[in-house]
Amino acid sequence: MKTVVVRNIQRADSNALGTFEALGVSTVHEAFGRFGLMKPYLRPVYAGAQIAGPAVTVLAQPGDNWMIHVAVEQCRPGDVMVVGCTTDNTDGMFGELLATSLRARGVKGLVIDAGCRDVSALKGMGFPVWSKAISAKGTVKSTVGAVNVPVVCGGVNVEPGDAVVADDDGVVIVPQKYCVETAQKAQKRHDDEDGKRQRLASGELGLDMYKMREALEKAGLRYVDNPEDV
Amino acid sequence: MKTVVVRNIQRADSNALGTFEALGVSTVHEAFGRFGLMKPYLRPVYAGAQIAGPAVTVLAQPGDNWMIHVAVEQCRPGDVMVVGCTTDNTDGMFGELLATSLRARGVKGLVIDAGCRDVSALKGMGFPVWSKAISAKGTVKSTVGAVNVPVVCGGVNVEPGDAVVADDDGVVIVPQKYCVETAQKAQKRHDDEDGKRQRLASGELGLDMYKMREALEKAGLRYVDNPEDV
Amino acid sequence: MKTVVVRNIQRADSNALGTFEALGVSTVHEAFGRFGLMKPYLRPVYAGAQIAGPAVTVLAQPGDNWMIHVAVEQCRPGDVMVVGCTTDNTDGMFGELLATSLRARGVKGLVIDAGCRDVSALKGMGFPVWSKAISAKGTVKSTVGAVNVPVVCGGVNVEPGDAVVADDDGVVIVPQKYCVETAQKAQKRHDDEDGKRQRLASGELGLDMYKMREALEKAGLRYVDNPEDV
Amino acid sequence: MKTVVVRNIQRADSNALGTFEALGVSTVHEAFGRFGLMKPYLRPVYAGAQIAGPAVTVLAQPGDNWMIHVAVEQCRPGDVMVVGCTTDNTDGMFGELLATSLRARGVKGLVIDAGCRDVSALKGMGFPVWSKAISAKGTVKSTVGAVNVPVVCGGVNVEPGDAVVADDDGVVIVPQKYCVETAQKAQKRHDDEDGKRQRLASGELGLDMYKMREALEKAGLRYVDNPEDV
Amino acid sequence: MKTVVVRNIQRADSNALGTFEALGVSTVHEAFGRFGLMKPYLRPVYAGAQIAGPAVTVLAQPGDNWMIHVAVEQCRPGDVMVVGCTTDNTDGMFGELLATSLRARGVKGLVIDAGCRDVSALKGMGFPVWSKAISAKGTVKSTVGAVNVPVVCGGVNVEPGDAVVADDDGVVIVPQKYCVETAQKAQKRHDDEDGKRQRLASGELGLDMYKMREALEKAGLRYVDNPEDV
Amino acid sequence: MKTVVVRNIQRADSNALGTFEALGVSTVHEAFGRFGLMKPYLRPVYAGAQIAGPAVTVLAQPGDNWMIHVAVEQCRPGDVMVVGCTTDNTDGMFGELLATSLRARGVKGLVIDAGCRDVSALKGMGFPVWSKAISAKGTVKSTVGAVNVPVVCGGVNVEPGDAVVADDDGVVIVPQKYCVETAQKAQKRHDDEDGKRQRLASGELGLDMYKMREALEKAGLRYVDNPEDV
Repeated sequence: MKTVVVRNIQRADSNALGTFEALGVSTVHEAFGRFGLMKPYLRPVYAGAQIAGPAVTVLAQPGDNWMIHVAVEQCRPGDVMVVGCTTDNTDGMFGELLATSLRARGVKGLVIDAGCRDVSALKGMGFPVWSKAISAKGTVKSTVGAVNVPVVCGGVNVEPGDAVVADDDGVVIVPQKYCVETAQKAQKRHDDEDGKRQRLASGELGLDMYKMREALEKAGLRYVDNPEDV
Repeated sequence: MKTVVVRNIQRADSNALGTFEALGVSTVHEAFGRFGLMKPYLRPVYAGAQIAGPAVTVLAQPGDNWMIHVAVEQCRPGDVMVVGCTTDNTDGMFGELLATSLRARGVKGLVIDAGCRDVSALKGMGFPVWSKAISAKGTVKSTVGAVNVPVVCGGVNVEPGDAVVADDDGVVIVPQKYCVETAQKAQKRHDDEDGKRQRLASGELGLDMYKMREALEKAGLRYVDNPEDV
Repeated sequence: MKTVVVRNIQRADSNALGTFEALGVSTVHEAFGRFGLMKPYLRPVYAGAQIAGPAVTVLAQPGDNWMIHVAVEQCRPGDVMVVGCTTDNTDGMFGELLATSLRARGVKGLVIDAGCRDVSALKGMGFPVWSKAISAKGTVKSTVGAVNVPVVCGGVNVEPGDAVVADDDGVVIVPQKYCVETAQKAQKRHDDEDGKRQRLASGELGLDMYKMREALEKAGLRYVDNPEDV
Repeated sequence: MKTVVVRNIQRADSNALGTFEALGVSTVHEAFGRFGLMKPYLRPVYAGAQIAGPAVTVLAQPGDNWMIHVAVEQCRPGDVMVVGCTTDNTDGMFGELLATSLRARGVKGLVIDAGCRDVSALKGMGFPVWSKAISAKGTVKSTVGAVNVPVVCGGVNVEPGDAVVADDDGVVIVPQKYCVETAQKAQKRHDDEDGKRQRLASGELGLDMYKMREALEKAGLRYVDNPEDV
Repeated sequence: MKTVVVRNIQRADSNALGTFEALGVSTVHEAFGRFGLMKPYLRPVYAGAQIAGPAVTVLAQPGDNWMIHVAVEQCRPGDVMVVGCTTDNTDGMFGELLATSLRARGVKGLVIDAGCRDVSALKGMGFPVWSKAISAKGTVKSTVGAVNVPVVCGGVNVEPGDAVVADDDGVVIVPQKYCVETAQKAQKRHDDEDGKRQRLASGELGLDMYKMREALEKAGLRYVDNPEDV
Repeated sequence: MKTVVVRNIQRADSNALGTFEALGVSTVHEAFGRFGLMKPYLRPVYAGAQIAGPAVTVLAQPGDNWMIHVAVEQCRPGDVMVVGCTTDNTDGMFGELLATSLRARGVKGLVIDAGCRDVSALKGMGFPVWSKAISAKGTVKSTVGAVNVPVVCGGVNVEPGDAVVADDDGVVIVPQKYCVETAQKAQKRHDDEDGKRQRLASGELGLDMYKMREALEKAGLRYVDNPEDV
């Protein structure tokens, strides 16, 4: 493993990213064939944000945020920073000062497989973070890692430039080469859902709308009138 | 175990349910002798809701929400859907479309021993869910389970029609045959607490109000003036 | 271990406490050399509170809140109650009535290594609690513990009178003899951060502001232009 | 909920229990349609035991083993004791003395949704226990629960007399009315596996033996020769 | 908090330690009034060891074992090393080389609130370790901590020289000033248990031996003959 | 994401694999710069095995072992199978029959980020498995995944053919291009340790052998004679 910073990375298609940000995690995750979802322990530090952008990736040692400082310089407006750690860690590796610095560069938000602190200040300034924990525990700057190499975060392998989509439902990663196709499928899925929502709201049953009754009978589901008949 | 849907179930007494909804989980749990409380990992996806209703129960395979679709048809206005799984699972088995469908039938909310998604939409439409996790992970519809059979959810066995009470403190189940008696005790407990609250607010000590001093002395509690006297 | 209540304890310096309350957990934790932080599983039951006060400590048996009732009498205005348990427990050992009683005595808040209930009432009355869980599970009053003895809470040993600082980032403990010195360092740290924040907001990089580039090079960090060069 | 001891319970068919003990948890679980398995946090305190017997059930308060003492009297030779708790607990509610007492009554083993202690003594005397934790934490005898009522243990509802099967793979419950049928299916499954094991050991592929290739192709699985072809 | 090594510490009474080692954790924990037990996540890396000795304490930064190297020099024959961390950590901070060094100084074993590695070598050389995790993750030597100051390990505050007792049931700490008294109570408890064990083995019920029947009746326990009578 | 099976993969250097198997996880992990270690929740189902081989990778849906059956055909003698899942899962996706099939093809062992069953049979036949859980829970064969694509397992991204090293300390992955270099470093590290072990066994302190005293003093560590001097 090299301790290296990669300066030039390719970034996911910006139109696709726009679609992803508008539609959110659940729709994108479905459109991508139900792959790429980070584990649900990654939660927003405050509710209500919904973002998408290309990943600037950071591989950090647990309890050491030196590489986050290094990575700031590699960010462009619209990016989302993604931090993975070499072992499980909940220390507060990110806070208000780093957020101020990322905000100055136009970064949209942060996903970190570790802890975050200054959460009320982050909420106040509207800089969204998805983290594993909230912790004031301070960190050292003693061991180098890497920037813009592949990192595992929340159980998903993230390559630099991959699309990161994050909202109250969690975080999903779409690799660059699947972004355009996935954006199209996501838009279609979203459009289809409007019709379904109206039908369901009017009282039509999913059982009928999705034509499930026959398959259920084939699968052996049986209806009885009373508990004693079970 | 039968893969079956039971169509006619008896539902908990509606007056008792009204009392439960007004008084909330902690009071009902105490009135029921401190039984029936689901484990605290079941949390509301947004704060502030307080509901009570008879359970429509669903036994689902992990990552498979087919039976939830089946169960919608069995719901009546005022019901609360309760979903148990055959193994631990955090996938997003419930979201906005199913909520729209349940809302159309007058269902008050959902308790699910698995994941939930579209949480900001659910908050927006005011459909409360208590779940084990928030996750966008999509689910399949491939294996049948059962509807309106006993299910274990959050460590509690729930029979169809049992009273489900849920608020920010969690979820408690009261079996049908204990509902009327428990509602009376809950109301009495609530009325008693008003007086206690006033006395405590005025500065009276619980030690005196509950007459604990003698029992404490008997149990061996000793007072000393200074740390060195310990 | 003695089952004892200590009546006279020394309390942390009130000026230092004022500084701590104004500056919050992360700053105080840094100023104290990154010691004394409770584990991040201790979370506020509602967001937004920030307090500091001397600890009145309680050692309780799991699922038994008798000693909390005993400890109320030992509290003075401005105190923060800290409850440790002899084993892991999530039962709701604290709720609205006890909060009413503590409020009547001027207590600022509670930190408890167990569960808490009546959380919407607590939010309504503005009495902040940091707990391990939210649970309606009722508790017994059958075994005595101790009040104002050292207790371990959230992985930190707390002596009676130590400074407790709590906000949305968690809880930190500063022993009495370090309070004055730590308050000075915290204030200095806070003042320094204002300048840094402005420089970072204007786009200056932490790499330059903290003069990290040379150390990074010495530590072996290398820059490459493209992923293929790794 | 009644605090009650039921003296006369019906016990699962003894022939079926004999089959279950011979074949073990995984085979019985499959034969029962993949229902009834306790959560995998329940582990044997030592490896190598394999038992089956009718359940004598205990509902205990956390950290309180009074009801276990009460339940001993209700046990017969061949029984398995199953203990559920009203909340999560890891205290050592069972140890060598209680095991000596159960051994004297011919009880085969214990399943407990809490902690166990004296584990090297239990291993020495060959009394198997499946528990959630190993802990020396002592327990009180202050609150009554119930014996031979339905209890939830490891996420499964257990009725008195149900078949309990336990080995190194975990614990499965088969309700009495399904025991005979499940034993037959388990025996058949076991017999079928012998033939399969031999074919697989000789190098035949499961893909061919189970005739999976066509279904896989239909489901969209594609073979490529090289990673670049993906 | 000072970064300091204390060279001269007082050690717990050696006769008491001999008694503790002979009787084991559960008995000592009971004799000490059910205080001082570490959390059950601390498990032996191999089964069968039973030790007692005075604590040499280490406060380490997570993922940094520098202070363990420092502490070796402060150990005497018969000591037990106890390592606490400033935040949660599972890195393998201890392995075969450090064990070789401790063995050379006559140290009996290690209790560490973090990870351990080389576990088959440790088993081979018979050096017992109780740890939170097994992990090969290497550690740095970059931040100083302290030796022979009070540390929290497994949820218990340990002072240098306190008695550490560890076996397959876990780890218990007895402060020096309680050792002699606790050893006497432990021996008495142990002697009493022999008689009880024989009576229980002969079939006498705990209900009768402990004379529980009257108290149970008073507490409201009721016996019924059949499940329908509940 | 493609649902695909890659038939021809390159495998890690066999000499390097031989060295890795001889030296074990901790040494290889250190030699690889402390990267590549799977999370410590992956544990061997029985103690004592130590293996190394090139990875045949499987991406499976939770609770669905269809792709494991598919992957068997792609294995060669000496391979190690590595299974990742799209979400957290503890179901018993692997057991005796699949082990028999893999054994027939010369596969050395399995690493699975899910559950395993038939563990006493696996121990009996000497087929080692590292898994997240032990569970009898049966699995379906309904959704396709992929074979020999990159998968995340235990928090590490594994490419087909990468070196997998597993023993009682856990599992480490070395990407193919680093194998030869890492094997050389591992051997050197191992040889160096022999000398260190002898010096430490003879009583030399690590403080002196590693020449730490000066750095510790510089870092601010101070020695005092008595606790009162702290």
